[in-house]
Amino acid sequence: MSSSDIFIGETIGTAILILLGGGVCAAVTLKASKARNAGWLAITFGWGFAVLTAVYISGPLSGAHLNPAVTVALAIKNSDWSNVPVYLAGQLLGAMIGATLVWVAYYGQFHAHLTDKEIVGGPGAQATAAKAVEAQEKGAGPVLGIFSTGPEIRNAAQNLATEIIGTVVLILAVLTQGLNDKGNGLGILGGLITSLVVVSIGLSLGGPTGYAINPARDLGPRIVHALLPLPNKGGSDWAYAWIPVVGPLIGGAIAAGIYNVAFA
Amino acid sequence: MSSSDIFIGETIGTAILILLGGGVCAAVTLKASKARNAGWLAITFGWGFAVLTAVYISGPLSGAHLNPAVTVALAIKNSDWSNVPVYLAGQLLGAMIGATLVWVAYYGQFHAHLTDKEIVGGPGAQATAAKAVEAQEKGAGPVLGIFSTGPEIRNAAQNLATEIIGTVVLILAVLTQGLNDKGNGLGILGGLITSLVVVSIGLSLGGPTGYAINPARDLGPRIVHALLPLPNKGGSDWAYAWIPVVGPLIGGAIAAGIYNVAFA
Amino acid sequence: MSSSDIFIGETIGTAILILLGGGVCAAVTLKASKARNAGWLAITFGWGFAVLTAVYISGPLSGAHLNPAVTVALAIKNSDWSNVPVYLAGQLLGAMIGATLVWVAYYGQFHAHLTDKEIVGGPGAQATAAKAVEAQEKGAGPVLGIFSTGPEIRNAAQNLATEIIGTVVLILAVLTQGLNDKGNGLGILGGLITSLVVVSIGLSLGGPTGYAINPARDLGPRIVHALLPLPNKGGSDWAYAWIPVVGPLIGGAIAAGIYNVAFA
Amino acid sequence: MSSSDIFIGETIGTAILILLGGGVCAAVTLKASKARNAGWLAITFGWGFAVLTAVYISGPLSGAHLNPAVTVALAIKNSDWSNVPVYLAGQLLGAMIGATLVWVAYYGQFHAHLTDKEIVGGPGAQATAAKAVEAQEKGAGPVLGIFSTGPEIRNAAQNLATEIIGTVVLILAVLTQGLNDKGNGLGILGGLITSLVVVSIGLSLGGPTGYAINPARDLGPRIVHALLPLPNKGGSDWAYAWIPVVGPLIGGAIAAGIYNVAFA
Repeated sequence: MSSSDIFIGETIGTAILILLGGGVCAAVTLKASKARNAGWLAITFGWGFAVLTAVYISGPLSGAHLNPAVTVALAIKNSDWSNVPVYLAGQLLGAMIGATLVWVAYYGQFHAHLTDKEIVGGPGAQATAAKAVEAQEKGAGPVLGIFSTGPEIRNAAQNLATEIIGTVVLILAVLTQGLNDKGNGLGILGGLITSLVVVSIGLSLGGPTGYAINPARDLGPRIVHALLPLPNKGGSDWAYAWIPVVGPLIGGAIAAGIYNVAFA
Repeated sequence: MSSSDIFIGETIGTAILILLGGGVCAAVTLKASKARNAGWLAITFGWGFAVLTAVYISGPLSGAHLNPAVTVALAIKNSDWSNVPVYLAGQLLGAMIGATLVWVAYYGQFHAHLTDKEIVGGPGAQATAAKAVEAQEKGAGPVLGIFSTGPEIRNAAQNLATEIIGTVVLILAVLTQGLNDKGNGLGILGGLITSLVVVSIGLSLGGPTGYAINPARDLGPRIVHALLPLPNKGGSDWAYAWIPVVGPLIGGAIAAGIYNVAFA
Repeated sequence: MSSSDIFIGETIGTAILILLGGGVCAAVTLKASKARNAGWLAITFGWGFAVLTAVYISGPLSGAHLNPAVTVALAIKNSDWSNVPVYLAGQLLGAMIGATLVWVAYYGQFHAHLTDKEIVGGPGAQATAAKAVEAQEKGAGPVLGIFSTGPEIRNAAQNLATEIIGTVVLILAVLTQGLNDKGNGLGILGGLITSLVVVSIGLSLGGPTGYAINPARDLGPRIVHALLPLPNKGGSDWAYAWIPVVGPLIGGAIAAGIYNVAFA
Repeated sequence: MSSSDIFIGETIGTAILILLGGGVCAAVTLKASKARNAGWLAITFGWGFAVLTAVYISGPLSGAHLNPAVTVALAIKNSDWSNVPVYLAGQLLGAMIGATLVWVAYYGQFHAHLTDKEIVGGPGAQATAAKAVEAQEKGAGPVLGIFSTGPEIRNAAQNLATEIIGTVVLILAVLTQGLNDKGNGLGILGGLITSLVVVSIGLSLGGPTGYAINPARDLGPRIVHALLPLPNKGGSDWAYAWIPVVGPLIGGAIAAGIYNVAFA
């Protein structure tokens, strides 16, 4: 793979991942969306099939890492860090493009939602308003949740642990994929299996922090949230931003270590 | 493939696609359906597995385009427009047959729903009636939604953008399928992968416009809605009808361009 | 395949199909079930994966028809009726065993449900009682629905049409499976694809009649319903029983005809 | 496979199975989880994809039994008991590790839930309190349900029967997998198929007892529940503990018997 193929593949692939992943969060959150309140199962299948779509499209170009934790774990496993910067650059750029496309696709919905007095708080809507204030104080209102993750209970140690555990599962599944292949086609099935692993992690480990398990997936859209001209959008919760970056990187390194000791 | 195989395959395949896709919309919408209010996840899996079913049945005959955006994108990619008219004719005819079969399968449900005073409006049901009036004014009441798509917020620029974005994702997934194959069988898995991509687009990008992403899927059933003798059916919203035709065609062309530049 | 392998395979396979298919209906219907009210999506995935499980277990023995409509359609396609009686006998016996196992697995739930005054009707529960009476009159109360299908709107012509349409889709998908194979493994994927086709038919065409699309699936459990010593079980709705038998057989024949004309 | 690979594979695999399976129960049960009340479909897909994830990760090391019922059934089928103790030891250890990791990932949620007066009972929350007392008396409150299974209706004969029936289905699917293979790759698809079989069993047979169908899945986490320093956690319901151990073992033996008679 050439560096340009890697960069283009990761940019396109991560853009599609975040377009579809952020998209499902917009779909179930925003006013005037047909999918409003479609529930947690919709969110987890939405993110899982976002991975599936992005992997099959970008796979032929870059191998479809789409996640710095995957890139770092493979670099540790193969002791080869030469392409790591190209992968990371494509992933961050792609994530920012994807988050911007969510805003384009849901432009009217964002506006309708964020200018609705019942939703963002105003006289006559105390209960909702109180909730909005609480969200605002936490720095993680539902609209930020379309872009990046936030914890239900703010506790750095637990939040970090949850992200690490989730990422270890993801990266172990990615690294062992080749062992299942035996030349019979799991490489081709791999995107499907991996996408269902992501559904699994979402269903099972997403409750406390919203399962970033991917630094680019969280950081790129958070930057876009900070930049976009959205009314009443609230803060971008930078205080939390390090956890979904550091946690998944630690998780990826631990998984690579487990792999090298137990599976290699 | 012979022209007659293509025509027959596209007609059967698109008829099944719309029968099952329109069917799930009827199932969750109409009175006296066991699936009433089954939710957005049911709709998106319903459309996705409609694609799966139609693709595996019609694939051996016509290659299962079932969508003018696919036909146009493949024509651009391969610089071969010779069979395009046959594909488009089969797709439109099939879509109209499929929409008619939905009406047959849900005949009693359509009648019960459209003659229910609580639903279509009448004294003593103001709240619902107001909603019906609002839907009527928009020209996109829920029963039309069984046939064709309509926007939650009517804004031609955004609606077009959302349809274009969704179709680019779909067509990129279709075009790159062959690159994943390597003679190992993805051609055979392709229908499954594509159907899950359609679930993904529905979950993530369906909120604003209901994701036509296929001109035949929207236009054929809209014609049938205009022709069927349904009581209190309301208008067919022809003012919106160009968007789910033009948007997907533009999306298909953009995806073919991206493919030719980045993947070929 | 020997006759005894066919008989044993169809008996085991159809028993598992009905155990799991009837099981999901019991699970979402009965009192004191953890899955109560899990919704239509649960029912349709439940039946679809029931097909998957039964097909992979019985496939090596009998080819996993599990449905007289499949057996008849294959006999027409191949002009070979020699094993048809063995297949049908195994399917009917298996369906009866499966329905009986549902009763065993949900024994306490059946009893708790059918002796609950709120559910089966009694003083102080008029609304529910009225509903029970209505169901009783129709002969298709929810507990019968665990065994066999029933229409939401009783109209022989439409009910028959809906069953025919659903079965045509199913049988076309089964018959064209071999055409997708090309020696690459779809035969093996076939059980998965077929099971998702069944989910699709359930989501899209199940609303009016509950999609029998299989005479054995409906008749066998209906016989068991008539025989089991369930309190307050109501009638077995024999007036409707011919439709889910005749409709799927007609559908299977039509699909075989379409296959022989268009695909062979 | 070496004994150490088997032990490590089963320990890692069963730990992941229980982490993800217990995780989804925590996710839908506990206060301050984003997935709270996500429903039965989420639980069944969560457990199914937990199996998928665990099977693909541990398969290359130990063949991914992850369940004493699988190990015993294969030992009966192959008349080879040599590695059985190593498998069982890894499975029980792994299950205990997995349950502990659920506690780590949901640490704050467990605390918030179990110290919430509305939930565990207190003045002003009679209805909920009454429910908690009832659960306490049964020894199977919802928090124990995150660790191990419990019946909705306590009846040893039926509970045992339900566990036996569910396990027979599971083990028949596992044992016949090789028959579907024919060298075309079902071995590789097997993890996917098996995981959907587990979804099926959950949807269809999970209603009465919560489908342990795996002695290690139930016993290991129950031990951890007894040991963990959780406030107001209630009893570990040891009176019920033998059923999800004995039932699945009987089911596995029956399935092996059916296999040896009908399929071998």
